[in-house]
Order: sequence, then structure tokens, then C-alpha cells
Amino acid sequence: MTSSVSPNQSGALDHVAAVPVAPTGGSRRGAAVDDVTLDPSGFWGRRQRVNAEATLAHCLEWMERLGWIENFDRVARGETTLDRPGWQFSDSEVYKLLEAMAWEAGRAADPGPAAAFDALVARIGAAQDADGYLGTAFGHPGLPPRYSDMGMGHELYNMGHLLQAAVARVRTGHPTDPLVGIARRAADHICQEFGEGGRESICGHPEIEVALVEAGRALGERRYLEQARLFVERRGRGTLRVPPLRSAEYFQDDVPVRDAEVLRGHAVRALYLSAGAVDVAVETGDEALRDALTRQWERTVERRTYLTGGMGSRHQDEGFGDDWELPADRAYCETCAGVASIMLAWRLYLATGDVRYPDLIERTLFNVVATSPSEDGRAFFYANPLHQREPGGQPRDGVNTRAEGGVRAPWFEVSCCPTNLARTMASLGAYVAAADGEGAVLLQYAPGRVCMGGFVLEVVTDYPDHGMVRIQIVAAPHGEARLRLRVPAWALGATLRVGEGAPEAVAAGWVDVRRRFATGDEVVLDLPVAPRLSWPDPRIDALRGTVALERGPLVLCLESTDLPTDMELADVRVDAAAPLTDRAGGARAAGALALPAGSSAGDLPYHPASAPLSVSGLDLTFVPYHRWAERGPATMRVFVPLA
Amino acid sequence: MTSSVSPNQSGALDHVAAVPVAPTGGSRRGAAVDDVTLDPSGFWGRRQRVNAEATLAHCLEWMERLGWIENFDRVARGETTLDRPGWQFSDSEVYKLLEAMAWEAGRAADPGPAAAFDALVARIGAAQDADGYLGTAFGHPGLPPRYSDMGMGHELYNMGHLLQAAVARVRTGHPTDPLVGIARRAADHICQEFGEGGRESICGHPEIEVALVEAGRALGERRYLEQARLFVERRGRGTLRVPPLRSAEYFQDDVPVRDAEVLRGHAVRALYLSAGAVDVAVETGDEALRDALTRQWERTVERRTYLTGGMGSRHQDEGFGDDWELPADRAYCETCAGVASIMLAWRLYLATGDVRYPDLIERTLFNVVATSPSEDGRAFFYANPLHQREPGGQPRDGVNTRAEGGVRAPWFEVSCCPTNLARTMASLGAYVAAADGEGAVLLQYAPGRVCMGGFVLEVVTDYPDHGMVRIQIVAAPHGEARLRLRVPAWALGATLRVGEGAPEAVAAGWVDVRRRFATGDEVVLDLPVAPRLSWPDPRIDALRGTVALERGPLVLCLESTDLPTDMELADVRVDAAAPLTDRAGGARAAGALALPAGSSAGDLPYHPASAPLSVSGLDLTFVPYHRWAERGPATMRVFVPLA
Repeated sequence: MTSSVSPNQSGALDHVAAVPVAPTGGSRRGAAVDDVTLDPSGFWGRRQRVNAEATLAHCLEWMERLGWIENFDRVARGETTLDRPGWQFSDSEVYKLLEAMAWEAGRAADPGPAAAFDALVARIGAAQDADGYLGTAFGHPGLPPRYSDMGMGHELYNMGHLLQAAVARVRTGHPTDPLVGIARRAADHICQEFGEGGRESICGHPEIEVALVEAGRALGERRYLEQARLFVERRGRGTLRVPPLRSAEYFQDDVPVRDAEVLRGHAVRALYLSAGAVDVAVETGDEALRDALTRQWERTVERRTYLTGGMGSRHQDEGFGDDWELPADRAYCETCAGVASIMLAWRLYLATGDVRYPDLIERTLFNVVATSPSEDGRAFFYANPLHQREPGGQPRDGVNTRAEGGVRAPWFEVSCCPTNLARTMASLGAYVAAADGEGAVLLQYAPGRVCMGGFVLEVVTDYPDHGMVRIQIVAAPHGEARLRLRVPAWALGATLRVGEGAPEAVAAGWVDVRRRFATGDEVVLDLPVAPRLSWPDPRIDALRGTVALERGPLVLCLESTDLPTDMELADVRVDAAAPLTDRAGGARAAGALALPAGSSAGDLPYHPASAPLSVSGLDLTFVPYHRWAERGPATMRVFVPLA
Repeated sequence: MTSSVSPNQSGALDHVAAVPVAPTGGSRRGAAVDDVTLDPSGFWGRRQRVNAEATLAHCLEWMERLGWIENFDRVARGETTLDRPGWQFSDSEVYKLLEAMAWEAGRAADPGPAAAFDALVARIGAAQDADGYLGTAFGHPGLPPRYSDMGMGHELYNMGHLLQAAVARVRTGHPTDPLVGIARRAADHICQEFGEGGRESICGHPEIEVALVEAGRALGERRYLEQARLFVERRGRGTLRVPPLRSAEYFQDDVPVRDAEVLRGHAVRALYLSAGAVDVAVETGDEALRDALTRQWERTVERRTYLTGGMGSRHQDEGFGDDWELPADRAYCETCAGVASIMLAWRLYLATGDVRYPDLIERTLFNVVATSPSEDGRAFFYANPLHQREPGGQPRDGVNTRAEGGVRAPWFEVSCCPTNLARTMASLGAYVAAADGEGAVLLQYAPGRVCMGGFVLEVVTDYPDHGMVRIQIVAAPHGEARLRLRVPAWALGATLRVGEGAPEAVAAGWVDVRRRFATGDEVVLDLPVAPRLSWPDPRIDALRGTVALERGPLVLCLESTDLPTDMELADVRVDAAAPLTDRAGGARAAGALALPAGSSAGDLPYHPASAPLSVSGLDLTFVPYHRWAERGPATMRVFVPLA
């Protein structure tokens, strides 16, 4: 296990493992990225390997090709111009890639050559100003002055990602890496500039908050935490200039964090801010703030979250919609919002131990995070709608605006998602297990080895294809110990068998096995993954009269690829009364074809009578949503109208 | 009747009345604005008076206050700066107001003081360059060069509205008004700059096309038409630089006009372009182009149009959505798209005589154009959604981004709608009647007097409150004549009574009365306006399981204002099997209350079982959609879920 140093409450340093989030207090801690070895044959291990072998290099190539990395060289050479390539937040993509590379190096038995990482860090370091400021879009000759556009400039956002990359480096055993020095100087600069008595401002895109807390934890600098607290408390007071055609809600400057009732505005901004605010609440013992965030999360999940775990209903402003505004077709569900939702839920789990958080993390991992990248890890969905009416057809070889066309794209104008996926996949093990002072907690199921809470567990499963999870005890603590397993909320009828005992029914939530474990013991959790129906709340107008199919943690979908070529997906109906059958990780259902009555050319699509439908028998094949559009351009829907 | 001069096909001049659109060929011509006198007690006459007495001055005041008019003075004084007030298209608002004032002066018995008009024209004229260029956002000291941003600069768009204002002035009897000279010089400049051998470019926001054709017709300049033709033919070939995060479809530069299958991209752009292309097709005898536009209109109406006639489903890019993408809640239905749809339908009517076009015009007038302005004509909706989940609450006293909050606003950051409404209301009479060589055609029903095709008709009705329309013959052509009436598509069971005859059933479409008319004769059309149900096409996913109520030409809605205070609109269901009753211009229906089963905090809104609903009896009051939010902030819906 890689060890490094981190402060505790009193400022003293103690050992912290390679975790993305390490609250100073509290009893729960997550697995280190090297505590969990995901079997490359499994669902997540395969993806983690593709990330390491393809996505990291893919991101590096694209950013080199587009000049986003050279932007740092231009600063170093004093050759900055206003027409620099990339948006004002392109630096952050380089930092997110560094974070991904750092976790990957800390995780893998063979971390591969470190030269690429070191070279990148050197180029970044050369662009840092003497006072610690680091940024390629402001504050240099020919560019706007530093901090001249707090609303949209993303300067602190960028440096926040720099800090997160440095945290990954510190926690994976490189506390003296040059990147750490760069980040420390940047953080010191931010505290100097924006601390008490300094600029009374905030960054339009939250991220610096969560980053400063973690950097404070990792580097033993309490004042970074204090700066994060200041940023959280300053927010919601209308200090940011609102850009044209936007509103203060867009960047959560409308209502103070502790007074808000629900997440709103730009989804990634809202989720990053909330994650940082949970960190601040935990570190400062501010229970009122933590409870406010818990309530906001609850209402957001209850009324503003998709079946996939996706968040953000609106393309406009990439934002949350109103309560119950959850259209399947225009679901934005940005990949980065999925990553950010996991960041928030993880922090709330560590703070509370509530099973709802890893439940949502599982849903989001399997249906947002797994959906975005292509099998080869070189193309991505930015938005993740639950309904595609027109088959995509764009080529995969160039920069894409936002991949709205139902085809994954290799890169985007705003390319936040590929590197966000990369850092998440590289650190995925961290979300698989936890220790909570009483023993180990297994949160996510994937084949591989888990060292946690004194246990060494070999997890044997081909989850989510099948629901049987065998947990073999390789090593266990001495004496009585507790192994806690998560039974997902969807797993009605789950059973647990301990050793040679009989399977016993277990309810959704936590199930604890408390005994003296011995090497060779086995605990078998059987989660019923058979296809099932999921009915939308009647207040979700966009989903009225439809039903979705799920199978285990996977949301399923209908793709036109599986329909006869003369059939339109729009005309397909599902018979919810007929039995569902399991089919190769998906499902088969009985369906019908509804052929709307014809109308004259130029007639409006509203009629004096409810149209009678021509119906015929039909077999429907549902496949996992996360793999849609992998077999070529297709129309697709998750919620299918009822026959 | 005001007369003025206009070219015919051969370039010779003949007399044209005060009409917004005067095709050179063809048999149909619309009423002049002074051919129709709308009774101020009627639905439209009242609104036209409010427009004249309140809205015109309101717009003038706002544009003076914001400095949008002073922008012209700054150019004249050589004091232009990059931080000028208003967007790059603010000039167009001044021109649209001039157009409204011109129609109003041409329409009214007492045109009021001309000083304000003349003063505005003088300030505009002082800003015109020697070569005819006119614009306050480009081409002057401190501003970007002329035509340096064809995609988003709006320079030709602005001058297009200038030409339309001049056309109104010419056609209302002021062919030598200084405004006409200004416009002529601007049009000459455009032909010089963008003609054959000049800049091979187009304007990102269509408008210059429709304007150049009409200016050519009104001023006898065939080359203006030729320039419009060039702009139409150049479009769709990807010559415009696509702005970040947009696509060529946004400004219809993706597919040549004659090759497109449907309207797409930014709705107002698409509709203005199509209107201009119809004009070009008509003037050049290009039947293939005209037929292409007819087919595009048909598919757009069939699959991309709201019950209100509203167009544009997306806030993102203010654009059309895919086929069947017609969400009620996020319906954009920009007021200007309603105006533009009327412009297009009117031209297609003149070109074809098809009754579908005035049918759509009626629907759009009553449910988009009438919805936007407040009763007092000093506040407006920009977007016109068919479902509001959160009651609005913004103050009415300041500039509003886009009035998305369910409250009309006095002005907008992008304030295209108020002046677009103003010019439409001032010229409304033009759409009421037509002559087609065989007689008069009554297209829209409103109390007042209509002089058309040799007829003088007194129309007595309180339509749309009641469906009885009495047409009294004040004067008629000698000998046999034909009076054609439109029976709206919704008017199942309409009857017609001629003179002392018995009422006879008439089908939707045209009904002709052919006889020798005499003064004192009466024709009575009785349109059944009783409330009726309208069922959405089953392919409109967002409306599945709902039904709407209409009454005559009016779309109705449910407003929370009419519910008990302890009731949520989201929980209301309508019983489509129970009879509807007429109620003061709206309707009463039987309904039920559906109380969704409770779930635990933090539960996702998707459940393993279809929720049973608690239902109780309920009386529902439906009111005209066009007046929603006039009784205070409210939630609202047009399509109501079925009990």
C-alpha cells in the first residue's frame, strides 16, 4: 500500500493511503487505489485497462495536437496571444490527465514510463509565475488581466484541477514531485489573493473548493481548508457578474449554499460545489451545512435525476431543470455530471455511512460512466440522453461540438469529459470498498482482490451479467470481525450464504456478517439480476405512459439495430403484462407495433379523436444502455410506451 | 385607400395598396391596412388600439433609455466605441418600430403626430455612410470592420428591417419620405457589395432576402430581387464560419434551400429565410423552389409545430427540434417565430390560395401573437411554453433575459419580440381578407369593416367568444360576384345562411357564395366554438397520455389560479369521457386528483410497481391560453394527463 502524509485535525501529519478523498475526522475511509485490484476480465477491470492502455495516450495526443499543452510553453516563452488555442479552461484538461496518470501509476503493478508525466509537469512548471499564479488564458502579454472575468474565466477552476492532480501524486507516494511544489505555490497564491482582506470573489465554475480541501488534507495546510470555506460561504450572494442570457443560478450565485433547497443551474458546477461544501462541512464540524447538503441531494435525487443516475435535464446552460423535468430525448446527463455526482455521493457516504450513496454511485457508474466511452476508449459521449429519435451519422475522426448526434466522438470543442472519465477510471478501485472502524465494507461488486479493514478478499463474480458474488476470505483480522456488504435497493429477493450455511434472504441496504473469519471461508451474495420493469413517477410528464426495463444495476434500452428494418422505433410498444425473459445480459419482452392513423399533408399532429392503433405481435430485444450505438448509428429509447 | 407605386414583372410601375406583401404576378392580393377597419370592441381591434396607444411609445421609450437609438447619433458624431449599448442587432429594433409606426400611420384615420417618426428617421439618416452602408456595430472607429462577422454580425439583417420599414412608408403613401431614400441607398450598397463579382457571402440571420424582394417590388428595382435570389441560392453551402458550440444548421447553412426537407435550426432564421425564398420563387417563376418550400412547410407543420401554432421546441439555439420533439414544458415557441410563421404562411397563401395557410395563421394569431403581450401592451412573453411547473415571480419593471419565468416582462436583453408584435398588430388588417380575381375572400373573422374585391362588408361578431359571424353587404360589385369564406379546419358542424335562406352545413375549407349581392344582404357563418378535445399524435412522446381542450380558435389551459390553494396542478387529471361545458369563453371539465404514493427521502422517482393513484372528483376550469399569467403568477398546462 502506497503511503504518504496528510494532516489531521491538529495539523500533525499521519499516513494516508492512495485515496482521492481523505476526511480528517470520522470513522470511514475509502480503499486506496492499490487496495483494490480489478480483474481485467471483469466489467470494470476491462475498462480500467482500456483507460490505461488507450484513453490516457488518446487524451495526450489530442491535447498536444490542438496546442492545449503548448499553451504552457507559450507562456514560458512570453509568446502569449489572444487567439491561443482552446477555451479558457483548457489547462484543466491537462491537469485532469495528470491526475489520471498519477492514479494509474499509483495503482498499476507496472506503472509504465514516467517520462511523459515528468515532461508534462516540467512544461507546466515553466509557465508558473513567480508568485505562484498559473494560467495560460489570463495575466500574460496580450491576454486579459488576471481575475478580470471571475464569472467565466475559470482561472481558479483550472488551478483546482492542478491541486487535485498534485493530491493524487502526493497520495501515491510522490510527495516531493515537482508537480506538488507547483500546486503548493498555486494554492499559496490563491490564499494570498482571495483570503481575508484580499479579493472578495469566487470562481464562476466551482472546483477550487473541493481541491483546496483535499490539498489542505494532503499537504497539511489548514489555511487551504479555510480558503475553501471562504469560497463556499461567499457563494450565492450575487457577487459574480452574470453573463448575457444567463442568470446567477447558472453558477449557483443566487442562494447561499446552506440556504438552498435543491441543486440547480449548471449541473457540473452545482455538483462540484456541493462536493466541496461537504468537505468543508466535514472538516469544520458544520453539521448544519452538511445537513443542508444532504437535503439538497435528497430532493435532487427524488425529482431531478434520471434512471441512469444522470443529472442535468437541459442542454440550455447544461443545467438541472425544474422538479420533474426529466425528458428522455433531451436529457443532457453530461458525462462530467455523472463523475461529479459520484464525487458528491462518495463524500456524503464517507460523512454518513448511508447506503443510498453507494447505491447511486453504482447506478451512475454502470449507466453514465460506462456509457460514455467506446469499447476502444478512444471516443466518448458528452451528453447521455435516454432517447435518440434520429440515428447518428457523424464521423468519428474529428472534433465534435458535443456529440449530440448519437455517435461517440474522439474529442470535443469543450472536452471536459474524456479526461474526467480517465481520472475516474484510473482511481475506480477507491470506490469499491471502505473501512469504518468496525470492519470492511464492500460497496461495489467486481471480480478482483480487495485489501480492506484487515481483510484480504478475493471477489469472484461475473457481475453484472450474473448476480452471484463469491467473496473468498484470503486473510482476515484476528478474532471476531465484521464484513459489511451492500445489497442494492433494486435487489429484491437477494440471498446471502455464509460458509456452508443455507442461503438466507437479505433485504436491501447493509447486510453484516460478523464472525471469526478464516482463510478459505466464503460468503456468497446472490443478487437477482433478472429483468424487471421500472415505472416512472406520474409527475414526470415526459415519461407518462411508458415503462423502462432494468437488469441488475443496468438500465436497458431498445435500439433500432434490433428491430426489423421496416419498423420505426417510434411505433414500438411494450406489453408490460407479459413476462420478461433474460437474454444475454439484456432482456426479451413482448411488444406490439402501433401504426398511427394517417393524416393529410400539412395537418397538425393534433386530432379530434384519440387515434386507434393498429397492433400486431412483436418480440422485443432489450440491450444494456451503456453499450448503445456501439453497433452503428441507431435510434434508441430507454422508456418504451405501453401497448 | 392609400396608393403608391410598385414595379410589375416588366419593371413598369402600377398602383399597389398599403400591403406588406405584393407579389408582382399571381391573382391574389391581400387587403391593404386601410382596407380593413377593426372594431376596437373586438378581440383584435382592442389589441390593435393598445398597440397604437401603448406599445409603440413603450418601445420607443425603452430604446431611447437603453441608448439603442443614440447608437445612431454616436455614429453620426464619430464617437463609436466597442462597448456600445445593445446587441449587434439592436438597430433592427428601431427599424421594426419605424415599420410599425408607418403601418399605424397608414391605417389610422388619425395618424397622430408625425414628429416622432421624422425625428427618428433623421437620426438614422445622419448615421448612414456616403456609400449607403448603415450600421452602428461595425465599420466605424473603434468597431470591428464591416462584414467581418457574417455569421453573427447581423449587418444585413439590420438593413433588411430598414428596407421593410421603408416599404411600409412607400405603400402608405410616402414614397418620397427620407426613410425611403436611406433604404434605397442601403439596398444599392448591398447589391454593390454582395452582387455578382462582389462578396460571395450571406448573412447569418436571414431577413435581407424577404426585405430585398419587397423593396424591389415597392421601389421598382429588379436588381434587389436578383440580389435576394443570390442570397437564397448561396445559402446552405457551408460558407459561414460556425460559431463555437453551434452548427451550420443553426443558420440554415447546412443544406441548400431547395434541397432541404424540413425547417430546422434557429426557428426565426428558418422561417424568415423560407418567407424570402417563397418571394424569390414567386417572382422568378421557380416552381421547383416553391414546391420545395411547400413540402418543408408541410412536414414542419405535421411534426414540428405546437397546438398553439408555435414553432421552435428548443431553448438551446432557439431552434426547431427533431420530428415529434414537442415538449410542452420547454416549448420555446418564440413570439417572433410566431410572427415569422405568419409571414411564411401568408406568402404561401398568396402563392397557392390553399386554405391551410390562413388556418395556421388564425391559430398562431390567437395563441402565440395574442399570448405574448399583456393586456396593457407594456409587457411581453418572449417564449410561449405550453406548461409552466413553477409559478413566475419576477418583477415586471426591468430588463429580463427571456421571460422564461412565467411572467411577462417589459423588455429583454434580446428584445426582438415587442417590436415584431408592434409591426404585426399595426398591419393586422392585411391578413384579414384578400381578393383573388374572382371576388373577395374573408380569411379571418373580426368585427369591423372590410373593403375588398369590390365589396364593402360590415362584419358583426364577437368571435371568438361566439362563433356567429354576420357579414352584412354594404356595397357589392355589379352583377354576379363571389364571396369566399374560410371555414376553419376545427369547425366541424359549421353552417352558412345566405340572406333569408336556411342554414346549410358547410365543410371545413373554402365556402363560396356566388350570387348577385345587394346592399343590405346578409351572409351568416356559424362556427361551432363549443369546447372540444384535441388528442396529440402518439409519436409526440412528451404528450403521451394527455389531452388538450380547445374552443373555437383558442387553445385553452388549466391555471393554478383556478385550483383550490391546497391542490398541485401536477396532480390534476382530466376525465376525457365526461362531457365538457362551455364557460365564459373557456370550458369546464370533470377531473380527478391523482396523489402519487409517497416514497422515502432520496429515493429515485422510478418504482418497481406502477403507482396506484388516489382519485377524487373535481371540477376543472379551463381558460384561454392567451391570457395565462394575467391574474398573477401561476402554474399552467395546456395538455392535461388523463384520469
